[in-house]
Amino acid sequence: MPLQEFPAMMKLRRPPQAVLIDLAGVLHTGDLALPGAVDALKRLRRSGLPLRFLTNTTRSPSATVIAKLRRMGFDLHPGEVQTAVLATRRLVAMRGLKPHYLVHPDIAGEIGPSNPNPDCVVLGDAGAYFSYAALNTVFRLLMQGLPLLAMARNRYFMEEDGLSLDMGAYVAGLEYSTGTQAEIVGKPARPFFETALADLGVAAEDAVLIGDDLADDIGGAQEAGIPGILVRTGKFRPEDERHATIRPDRVVDDFAAAVAALSV
Amino acid sequence: MPLQEFPAMMKLRRPPQAVLIDLAGVLHTGDLALPGAVDALKRLRRSGLPLRFLTNTTRSPSATVIAKLRRMGFDLHPGEVQTAVLATRRLVAMRGLKPHYLVHPDIAGEIGPSNPNPDCVVLGDAGAYFSYAALNTVFRLLMQGLPLLAMARNRYFMEEDGLSLDMGAYVAGLEYSTGTQAEIVGKPARPFFETALADLGVAAEDAVLIGDDLADDIGGAQEAGIPGILVRTGKFRPEDERHATIRPDRVVDDFAAAVAALSV
Repeated sequence: MPLQEFPAMMKLRRPPQAVLIDLAGVLHTGDLALPGAVDALKRLRRSGLPLRFLTNTTRSPSATVIAKLRRMGFDLHPGEVQTAVLATRRLVAMRGLKPHYLVHPDIAGEIGPSNPNPDCVVLGDAGAYFSYAALNTVFRLLMQGLPLLAMARNRYFMEEDGLSLDMGAYVAGLEYSTGTQAEIVGKPARPFFETALADLGVAAEDAVLIGDDLADDIGGAQEAGIPGILVRTGKFRPEDERHATIRPDRVVDDFAAAVAALSV
Repeated sequence: MPLQEFPAMMKLRRPPQAVLIDLAGVLHTGDLALPGAVDALKRLRRSGLPLRFLTNTTRSPSATVIAKLRRMGFDLHPGEVQTAVLATRRLVAMRGLKPHYLVHPDIAGEIGPSNPNPDCVVLGDAGAYFSYAALNTVFRLLMQGLPLLAMARNRYFMEEDGLSLDMGAYVAGLEYSTGTQAEIVGKPARPFFETALADLGVAAEDAVLIGDDLADDIGGAQEAGIPGILVRTGKFRPEDERHATIRPDRVVDDFAAAVAALSV
C-alpha cells in the first residue's frame, strides 16, 4: 500500500510524554492476557512515562476491571484507570441529572439507582439485561423528550469465543426509532480523552493512544489531536487497514510491538 | 399551512380503482377497533372496489391477524391480506434461501425452522424474544458475511398503552454494528407494494394507500407511485405533518374520513 497522508493523521513523537492505553483487546481478551502484553507493560513502566488506561467496558464496575487485570499480572493502579462508567457518574453529578438507568446490574452500585422521575436516560452495556421490556421503557422516555446519554457506542468487542455485539447496536437502534441523537460519554467522545490529558498535564500531540478499535479508539483519539497506534489484536479486522476515512498513525501486531514503536 | 407541492406528491384520483389499507393503527389498536372503522370498511365494501390489507405486523401469524380483525367486526378475507411474513416466505422460497430466523416463536409455524447451515439471516419482530444472546448469534452470522433480510424496519407502533418500540430498532442496530445494510421485505419496500398492485391488476397511480406510518406506509407507497392518505390515528404524531421530505397526499382524522375522502 503506498504511503498516503490522511487529514487526521498526526505526527507520532518518539518518545511521547504520556501513553493512553485501551484495555480489552489490547492487554487482554476476557480473562486471558494477550501474549507478551504483561512484559510489554513492565518495559513501558521502566520508561517512567505517565500512563492512563481508558476503557469503555461498562458491564463491570471499575474495581472489578482493575482487579481482573492485576490477577492477569498487569501492573496498574486505580488512579490510572479511566472508565466510561466513572466518567458518566461524574457527568451526572456535575450536571445534577436524575437519570433512568439501563445498565448492567453489576454497575448499579457504582452509579446508583434510577430516579423514579427521571430527566434523562443513561445507557450502559447491559449485555444479557438488554430485554425488550427494558428497551421499550427507555424508548417511551425518549419519546417524551428526555435526552439520551450513552456510556459508549462501540459496535462490537472481542470475547474469548469471538466478536460479540456491543452496546452501540442498542444506541443506534434507539436513535433510529426515536429520531434522537445520543450523547456519548466514553470513547470516542472528545471530553473523555481531554479529561485524561488534563489529569496528566500533557498536550494532545505529546501523548499517544494504543487501541484495537479503529473508530472509537483511533478515530476518537485523532479527533482530539492524539496520535493513535492500532494493534492487530482484539477486535482488529484486516479491513481496518483499508478504512475510507480513519488512518492510524501506526499499525502494529500487538501491544508489545506498540511499546517498541514508541522507542522509550 | 400553505399548500405546497412536494416531489413525491401524487395526484389523488377520486374514486381510485383499488384501495390498499394498513391494519394496525388504521383499523384497530391492539384488540380494539378504532372508532367508526368497522362501519367505514362496510361503506367502502359497498363501493365494490378491490381492497388489499397490507401489514408489517410480524409478531403473529397471518391467520391470527385475520381472525383478530374479524372478531372486531371487520369484514375481510384471507386472500385480501398481504403480510410481511407471507411475503418473506415467498421470497425465501423463490430464491431458495436457507435462513437463520430470529422471529417471534408464534410465526415459526408459518415460516419453518432455521437452517443449521444458514446462507442468510431473516429478522422478524421477535418482540420479547429479542434477547442479547439471540442478537449476538445473528451478529456473528452477519460478520461472517451472511446477508440480512428484515421483514420490516418500522420505528414504533401503537399499542393499547402507548407507542412501543418496533423491530426497526434492532435492524438499525445490527446494521450499525456489522456495517451491513438489510434488505426490507415488507413496507416500505417497493416490491411489497408492487405485489399488491399486480395481484389487483391496477396501476400505481390508480390505487391509493391509507396508513398511519408516515415513513413506511406513505413514504413507501409514494416511492412506488401510489398516492398515500395519512390518518391521525395509531402511531400518527403531530410532527408527521411537518416532515422535511415526506408529504402525504391527504391527511385526515381517521379511517372513516379517509374513506369519505375517496368519494366512493
